[in-house]
Amino acid sequence: MKQVVSVKRRALAANEERAEAIRSRFSNSGTLVVNLISSPGSGKTTLLEATVRALNGELGTAVIEGDVATENDADRIRALGVPAHQILTGGACHLDARQIEQALEDSRLPEVDILFIENVGNLICPTTYDLGEDFKVVLLSVTEGDDKPVKYPAIFARAEVAVITKSDLLPHVPFDLESAQSQIVSLNPNGAIVVTSSLAGEGLDDWLDLLRQRLQVKRQSRG
Amino acid sequence: MKQVVSVKRRALAANEERAEAIRSRFSNSGTLVVNLISSPGSGKTTLLEATVRALNGELGTAVIEGDVATENDADRIRALGVPAHQILTGGACHLDARQIEQALEDSRLPEVDILFIENVGNLICPTTYDLGEDFKVVLLSVTEGDDKPVKYPAIFARAEVAVITKSDLLPHVPFDLESAQSQIVSLNPNGAIVVTSSLAGEGLDDWLDLLRQRLQVKRQSRG
Repeated sequence: MKQVVSVKRRALAANEERAEAIRSRFSNSGTLVVNLISSPGSGKTTLLEATVRALNGELGTAVIEGDVATENDADRIRALGVPAHQILTGGACHLDARQIEQALEDSRLPEVDILFIENVGNLICPTTYDLGEDFKVVLLSVTEGDDKPVKYPAIFARAEVAVITKSDLLPHVPFDLESAQSQIVSLNPNGAIVVTSSLAGEGLDDWLDLLRQRLQVKRQSRG
Repeated sequence: MKQVVSVKRRALAANEERAEAIRSRFSNSGTLVVNLISSPGSGKTTLLEATVRALNGELGTAVIEGDVATENDADRIRALGVPAHQILTGGACHLDARQIEQALEDSRLPEVDILFIENVGNLICPTTYDLGEDFKVVLLSVTEGDDKPVKYPAIFARAEVAVITKSDLLPHVPFDLESAQSQIVSLNPNGAIVVTSSLAGEGLDDWLDLLRQRLQVKRQSRG
């Protein structure tokens, strides 16, 4: 077991180096990089569809999709005229910085204002892998239950933004919004929480304003 | 990377040995062991609550709960008067056979007819870890989207039973039931599919009959 731990520690240290190189590259270009993490089916791709559609004409966006199998998610983004690169992990339960570096060599990924990385559907493994992003976003759909933040505390503590999704389904499911929000606040007192429905449109303006603001802060800090 | 792979292979081989020991123990006792796997929030605990409640007085049941954090799920089962043992994995994204062996030393876990193991909420990592179960059950809630079987093919190919959950929400979500079912059938032509709503009660009789039948077959094969 000790050997597994030390191999994993070395892998994480190597990942950290590559992530810093990615961060430095995008610090120069002024591109905001956002790493989206959630369970399968929490609505990451649907939120991205609504996001790139809304920002179209205002900001340049691109998406790196991570999945165990299929190009389906990249195809959904490309159908909106937005460049997307699909990473297939085979069996792996998270993306790593090396895969992002390789994806960035894809000539179809232009320099953009905001690069979204949609991680593999998983609330656990992606938590510890830095991809060179500006910040992590964790999504939690109201259909998953209001008990999830305390059951998966690491990602809710580490993600600077929590997006509660599928709010249009609140009338149909037993989900205590206040309880979920207060768990998230206690795990991450400085984080932001946005409540959205990508299908009904609720909260999307808040989410888009948050992205615009973070992009502006990043560019101002570049001087 | 090669070293990581070989360490992982050795860990899996060691796990396999322990799993076989567990399988042999429950072959002797005639206990049916069911390993439930799904994303966080697909309704594993809620299905188990409905199941042990329905079987109460007819069959003895117990539950081993796997979670990254909190005893909440075991507490929900215990509240129904059914013995439950909580395994906390810290950060690990799946249960392993060693943890099941240790849980079985818990004197509060009596000999029962059906032992349910609720794995950590994750559609990827638990797939390759044999826990000595008779069969794996994968759950997919209709709110997660009908594209999930082909995106997470390994678990849908390996689980002998797929339970589609939260069918009461079908009128409110874009979920093509036929498409999901046909993906599951193509990944696992010999598997069983049950459509359920633990809250509304739909399909629970089919699920309970499946459990009774598998228990009967196991005991008959013991001779």
